[in-house]
Amino acid sequence: MIEQSQLKEDIVQAAQNVRANNPMAGSITNTVTIDFVANAQLAAGGSAAMVYLPDEGETLVAAGGAVYLNMGTLFPVYEETIPRTAAAAQAAGKPWVLDPVGIGIGSLRTKLLSQLKEYKPAIVRGNASEIIALAGLWDLSGSAEDLSRARGVDTTDTVEAARDAAVALARFTGGAVVVSGKSDLVTDGKSVVISHGGSSLMGKVTGFGCSQGGVLAVYATQTDPFTAAVAAVNHYNFSGRAAAAKAAAPASFKAAFLDSLYLATPEDIANNSMEIQEA
Amino acid sequence: MIEQSQLKEDIVQAAQNVRANNPMAGSITNTVTIDFVANAQLAAGGSAAMVYLPDEGETLVAAGGAVYLNMGTLFPVYEETIPRTAAAAQAAGKPWVLDPVGIGIGSLRTKLLSQLKEYKPAIVRGNASEIIALAGLWDLSGSAEDLSRARGVDTTDTVEAARDAAVALARFTGGAVVVSGKSDLVTDGKSVVISHGGSSLMGKVTGFGCSQGGVLAVYATQTDPFTAAVAAVNHYNFSGRAAAAKAAAPASFKAAFLDSLYLATPEDIANNSMEIQEA
Amino acid sequence: MIEQSQLKEDIVQAAQNVRANNPMAGSITNTVTIDFVANAQLAAGGSAAMVYLPDEGETLVAAGGAVYLNMGTLFPVYEETIPRTAAAAQAAGKPWVLDPVGIGIGSLRTKLLSQLKEYKPAIVRGNASEIIALAGLWDLSGSAEDLSRARGVDTTDTVEAARDAAVALARFTGGAVVVSGKSDLVTDGKSVVISHGGSSLMGKVTGFGCSQGGVLAVYATQTDPFTAAVAAVNHYNFSGRAAAAKAAAPASFKAAFLDSLYLATPEDIANNSMEIQEA
Repeated sequence: MIEQSQLKEDIVQAAQNVRANNPMAGSITNTVTIDFVANAQLAAGGSAAMVYLPDEGETLVAAGGAVYLNMGTLFPVYEETIPRTAAAAQAAGKPWVLDPVGIGIGSLRTKLLSQLKEYKPAIVRGNASEIIALAGLWDLSGSAEDLSRARGVDTTDTVEAARDAAVALARFTGGAVVVSGKSDLVTDGKSVVISHGGSSLMGKVTGFGCSQGGVLAVYATQTDPFTAAVAAVNHYNFSGRAAAAKAAAPASFKAAFLDSLYLATPEDIANNSMEIQEA
Repeated sequence: MIEQSQLKEDIVQAAQNVRANNPMAGSITNTVTIDFVANAQLAAGGSAAMVYLPDEGETLVAAGGAVYLNMGTLFPVYEETIPRTAAAAQAAGKPWVLDPVGIGIGSLRTKLLSQLKEYKPAIVRGNASEIIALAGLWDLSGSAEDLSRARGVDTTDTVEAARDAAVALARFTGGAVVVSGKSDLVTDGKSVVISHGGSSLMGKVTGFGCSQGGVLAVYATQTDPFTAAVAAVNHYNFSGRAAAAKAAAPASFKAAFLDSLYLATPEDIANNSMEIQEA
Repeated sequence: MIEQSQLKEDIVQAAQNVRANNPMAGSITNTVTIDFVANAQLAAGGSAAMVYLPDEGETLVAAGGAVYLNMGTLFPVYEETIPRTAAAAQAAGKPWVLDPVGIGIGSLRTKLLSQLKEYKPAIVRGNASEIIALAGLWDLSGSAEDLSRARGVDTTDTVEAARDAAVALARFTGGAVVVSGKSDLVTDGKSVVISHGGSSLMGKVTGFGCSQGGVLAVYATQTDPFTAAVAAVNHYNFSGRAAAAKAAAPASFKAAFLDSLYLATPEDIANNSMEIQEA
C-alpha cells in the first residue's frame, strides 16, 4: 500500500509534467461529449485529437503518448477501428484508457468490449454498474454479471459495491481502475484510494465521466497508470468543488469547472481530500 | 377545448413527476446539437442516452420511457436505425418524438420521413416550414407542399401559417404537434395553445429546437402528449425570457437558459403566459 | 497591393451585409467542434446547416451562398460526400472554404485532399504546418513536404515559415489563404495582411480554427475571398482580445468570445490592428 506523502509527491510531479509538456492523447470517443473531452484535456494541460477510421486510430497511437477509447455512440466502422487502435497501443507499449460506457447496449458494444480484454487497458474508468458489468463480461468476478444493470448511462450500484470488481480488473490488467461516484475509488489492485470532493451538479451535466477519461489519458502519458488515475480523479474532485462554490446551476457550473481544471495548481490536485486503504 | 386551470394543474403535476423520477428518454439525434439535447434533458430533470446503431435504438426504447428521433445529420446506418427504433416504440406502446429538421434535404431524409408516417409519433416538433412540409409529405394537407420551403434549418413561414398543417398532423397521429416560432403553437387537434415568452437570442444559438425535442420526450414519459408538449414549450419560453433578463449575447444567454431550465419551478412552467383556442 | 483604407471600407461593407442578409453557409465539418462552428456562424451574423451524405452536400451548396469543408473526424461516406460537394460548389460558381485539419493522418484524408486540388477552394485556412503540408501535397512548393509535420492538430511551424506556401496556394487557387498563429497571415498571392490580436487562451479551447472556417464561409457569401478572409480573421482577433479582457480561463473565455463575435461592430472588425505587405 502506497504512502500518502509519496503519492502526493508523485501527483505534483505528474501535474507539473503535464503542464510543461502539453502531451497529446488522442481519442476515439462519443459524439455527445466529444467537445467536453477535448476541452477538458486542453484545460488540464494536454492536447487532443479525435478520429473515427481504423488507420487514423493507429496514427493517433503513433503520434501521442496515450490513447482513449470510449464506447459511447458506436459507428459501424468501429468494428475495425476500436480493436486495431487498442492493438496498436499494446504493440507500441503505450497506455490506453477504456471507458465502457453503455455496456450492455447492443451487440457491437458487447463484441468490442469482449475483444478488448486481451489488449489490457492501462486504466479503466466507469461508474459502479459499468465496472461490475465489465468484470463480469471479462469473467473476472466469479459470476456472470448482468450486462444490463446499467440504466443507459446511469449507475444503479454504489461505488463500494464495485470495489471487488475494480480490484479484480486492476489485478488482471496490471493497471489502474477508476470507479466514479459520490466519492471516487481508484485502485491498482494493491491500494485503494477514495477521493472526495466534486459536486452533485456533476450529475446534471453530461460528460463528466467521458471527459475524465480523456484527462486520464493525458496524465497517463507522463506517469504510471495508478498515479495518473489518482491525479486525474483528484483534479476533477478539486475542480468540481471549486466550481460548486461559484455556480449553482448546470451550465454555469460546467464553465466554472473547466476554468478550474485550467487554474488548479499541482498542489491543489495533490492535496485534494483522499484516503488510502489496502485493496 | 381544455380549461386553462386544468392544463396548468396537469403541467405542475408533470413537471413534479419529471423532477421526482429523473426519467430516461433516449435519442437518435444530430451531432451539431447533441450535447445541448443531453444537457437540456438533464437540466429539465430527466436523463439522456444517445446511440446510432439499429439494435441500440431498440434497446433505448426498452430502457427508457420515451424516445426522440431527430432527422439532422443523417448517417448511412440510419436507413435501418430510424425505422426500427420507431417501430420498436410503437410496438412497446411508448411515445416517441419526431423532429423533421432538414426536411427536403437529400433522398434518405425524405425516404425516412415517409416511412415514419405509419409509426405515428406522439409529438411532432418543427418550425412552421417543417410542419407544413411534413403535413404535405404525409398527404394530410390537401395539397402536395413543397419540401424545399425550409431554407436549410430556417423557416420561411410564420407559425400561424402552419396552424392548419399542425392540426391535421395532430388529428392524424392522435398526439400533439409543436410549431416553434416567435410565439409557439401546440395542438392536439382539438385545442390550440399559443405559448409566449422566449427571446430573439434563441435564433442566434443553434439547438433550441433540437434540444426542445429531447425535453419533449422527457415530459412524454410522465404524461399525455399534449400536456407534455405544452409543459416543455412553456418550460422553454419561461427559461428563454429569464435568460434574456440576465444575458444580452448568445453564449452567455445559452448558459443562462440551461441554468434556468434547471432552476424553473413547476409553477413557473405552468404559469408561463399562454392562450387556449379552439383548433 | 491593396490600400489599407480601401480594405477597411470593404470589410465594413462585408460585415454590414452579413448582418443584414443573415446568409447561410453549409458545412461538412468534424464532430468535435461542430457546435462551435454553427454557433460562431450564427454569432457572426450568418446561418448554419451541417450534413454528412453526398446528395445532402450538393443540396447545401444549392441552398447556401458558400460551403465549408473541414477534414476533421472523417466518416467512410466522406469518400463520396467531400468531392461531390466540392465539385457542386465549383460547378455552381459558389465559393468554398477548405480546412485541411489533420493533414497527414490516414489514407482517406490524403486521398481527399489530393482530389480537392482540382476544385480550387476560394479560401484555405490552416495553421502553419497544415498550410506547408497542403502546398507540398499539391506540389506547389517546389519540394515534397512532409505530411506528418503537423502533430495531430497542432502546428510545429511558425506563421512566417508558412508564408511562401500560403502565397503559392493563393496564386494557384486564385483565392485567399489564411495561416492561423500568434498573429494571422492572410494572402491573395499579391498582398499579405498580418492581423494582430486574439489571445493565448485560444490555444486552450478546441475549435477556434474550425469555427473560423465556418465564419470565413459566411463572409465569402457576401464579398470576394480576400476581403472575406481578412474580415473573418479580424473579427476573430478583435473578439479574442475583447474576451481576454473579460475572462482569464478557457470556458468563460470561450463564452465571452462568442458573445463578442455577436457584439462586434463592422467598424470594430475593420479597425482591428493589421499591416499590409507585398506578397
